[in-house]
Order: sequence, then C-alpha cells, then structure tokens
Amino acid sequence: MAYIELIGMLAVLQFFFFSFLTGMSRGKSGLKAPAVSGDESFERIYRVQVNTLEMLAAFLPALFIAGKHWPPIAVSILGLIYLVGRFIYWRAYVANPDTRRLGFMLSMLPTLALIVMAICGAVREIW
Amino acid sequence: MAYIELIGMLAVLQFFFFSFLTGMSRGKSGLKAPAVSGDESFERIYRVQVNTLEMLAAFLPALFIAGKHWPPIAVSILGLIYLVGRFIYWRAYVANPDTRRLGFMLSMLPTLALIVMAICGAVREIW
Amino acid sequence: MAYIELIGMLAVLQFFFFSFLTGMSRGKSGLKAPAVSGDESFERIYRVQVNTLEMLAAFLPALFIAGKHWPPIAVSILGLIYLVGRFIYWRAYVANPDTRRLGFMLSMLPTLALIVMAICGAVREIW
Repeated sequence: MAYIELIGMLAVLQFFFFSFLTGMSRGKSGLKAPAVSGDESFERIYRVQVNTLEMLAAFLPALFIAGKHWPPIAVSILGLIYLVGRFIYWRAYVANPDTRRLGFMLSMLPTLALIVMAICGAVREIW
Repeated sequence: MAYIELIGMLAVLQFFFFSFLTGMSRGKSGLKAPAVSGDESFERIYRVQVNTLEMLAAFLPALFIAGKHWPPIAVSILGLIYLVGRFIYWRAYVANPDTRRLGFMLSMLPTLALIVMAICGAVREIW
Repeated sequence: MAYIELIGMLAVLQFFFFSFLTGMSRGKSGLKAPAVSGDESFERIYRVQVNTLEMLAAFLPALFIAGKHWPPIAVSILGLIYLVGRFIYWRAYVANPDTRRLGFMLSMLPTLALIVMAICGAVREIW
C-alpha cells in the first residue's frame, strides 16, 4: 500500500503545483480576485488546475480501492501513467488548448482503468 | 466494505459521465477552450458537473467513514439515494435550472446524513 | 484514527457551510443559475467555496495517509490549524479579497506539511 500512497500524494503535489502556477499567473496578469476570466494565459493554466481537480476526485478513490484488490505493481504503473499524462496535458494546454487531447487521454484512460479494476475487485468480493 | 466501495465507484463513474456530457456539449456549442461561458446549454451541463464534483468531495469521505462505523446496508441505501438524486438533478437542471431543487435535496440530504453518521461513529469511538 | 476521522468530517462540514452561504448569496443577488458571475458579493463567497474544494482535495487524502504513519496528536493539530485557517480565509475574502493571504497560508501550509508527512511515512515503509 505504501507505493500507492506515494503515488496518491505525488498526484496531490502535482495538483498543488498547478494551483501555484495559477496563483503566479494571476499575479502576472494583473487580474484581481474574485475574477477568473479576462486574461487568456491565466485562463489556460486555471483550466489545467480545474481539470486536474476533476480528475483527482476520480483518480484518488479509484487508486486506493483498486490498490486493495489488485497487485500494487499494476496499480502503481497506471498511477505513473496518470502523473505523466497530466504533465503532458499541462504543457500542451498552456502552449495551445487545441493540442490537449493526448495528455487528457493519458490521464483519463488510466483513471478509467482503475475505476473498472476497483469495481471488479469489489464485485468479486461480494460474490 | 465491498458494497460501499462499489457505490463509491459508481458515484465516480456518474461524475465521469457528466464530465463526458460536458465535453460533448462543448464540441456541439462550438465554444473553444478555455472559455466556459457563452452558451446556455453548455453552461447547464457544466454546472451539473461542477456541482457533482462539490458533492463528491463530501460524499466519498463521508460514505467510507460512515461505512466503518455503521451497518453496510444502511450506508449503502443512503448511497443509492444519492446516486438517484444526482440523476434527477441532472435531468432537471438541463431541462430547466429552476427545477433543480428536488434532485439537489435527494443528493445533499443523504450526504449530510452520512456526515452526521461518520461524526457520531468517530465520537462514539473516542469516548 | 477516530480523531482524524472527526477532523476530516469537520472539514467536509465546513465546506458544506461555505456552499450553503454561496446558495444563500445567489438567492440574495438575484443571479439566476447557471450564471456564476455578475455580482461581486456572490463571486467572493463562491471563490471561497471553490478554493476550499481545491484545498479539500489535497487536505483529506494527506490527512488520512499522514494519520496512518504519524502520532494522531500531531496530525490532528495540523488539521485544526487548517480548519481555523479556512475560517479566517472566508472572513477576510468576503470583507476584502486583498486580505485573503493569511487565511490562505494557514490552510495551505498545514496541508503541505501533511503531504510531506504522508510521503515520508510511505517512503519509510518502502525502505
């Protein structure tokens, strides 16, 4: 379980890193809180942060439940793909939002795989 | 715990389904990322997704902690009401945002009940 | 673990409280769903809610994983600082968004400490 906890915490740290970049971008853009629109480059990194939050809400519970039912190595590899996928998503979205699909898929598909593994693990335990 | 894990994962899948609908709606509306406003029907499904994310952040931890302290059948029934409530919320919000109250209550009240059960369970263990 | 569960649930309740205030503020502002901008005082409390959601996504998993590896008293104190920090953040943001820094730091730093503790705990277990 320690490997899986480590990956979960790295995913949280990655989200904090995107949040930090969003805060920096707000400072640079001169956009005053509570506004969240009006500056294209702020909006891009902000959307990366929001999308990562949405992913995290699915990724973390799926990671830990899948980790209870499947070998840690398989679950950890899916978690690592998610982490790399999110970095690719961030770089692509900031450069050009139209190129965000690859990074999105590389974090969405491992999350979906973890959800399916968690559901199969739970169903197997019930039957 | 397996029933509770199953319900938790179904709630995550439901959220992914709303996220998928939001992505579809963005495509149909012609709204280009990072914009999230400017098309009423996109904004409705996007608000369903965001509101579900907010609920999920409370529902999932409350579900698992309540599940440690109370009979799985009681916790599972509250979880099922939540799932049905979210579907009603989605259909109502997309049809007419003014009618979203019933579905909202049907997901908010079971979540609140799970939070109270989790708190009572933890307090009982401390004393 | 019961103390840590209690603090986790109080953090979720606090988030629900901010969500409730956001709903109240929408009613008072006359802003109709799905709109989330156009009224300064609504936007401020809404930003408090969203920022708390972002914090919660990091705070809750870090709290529970740190709680598995470190004495409950240390983890609980960090959790209490987070809770107080969020209340200060709310009061300051609603009064004047420019004064939100102290409350933000008082919830962000304990969360960061919990993440570091969780990572150290997991790494110590692996080695």
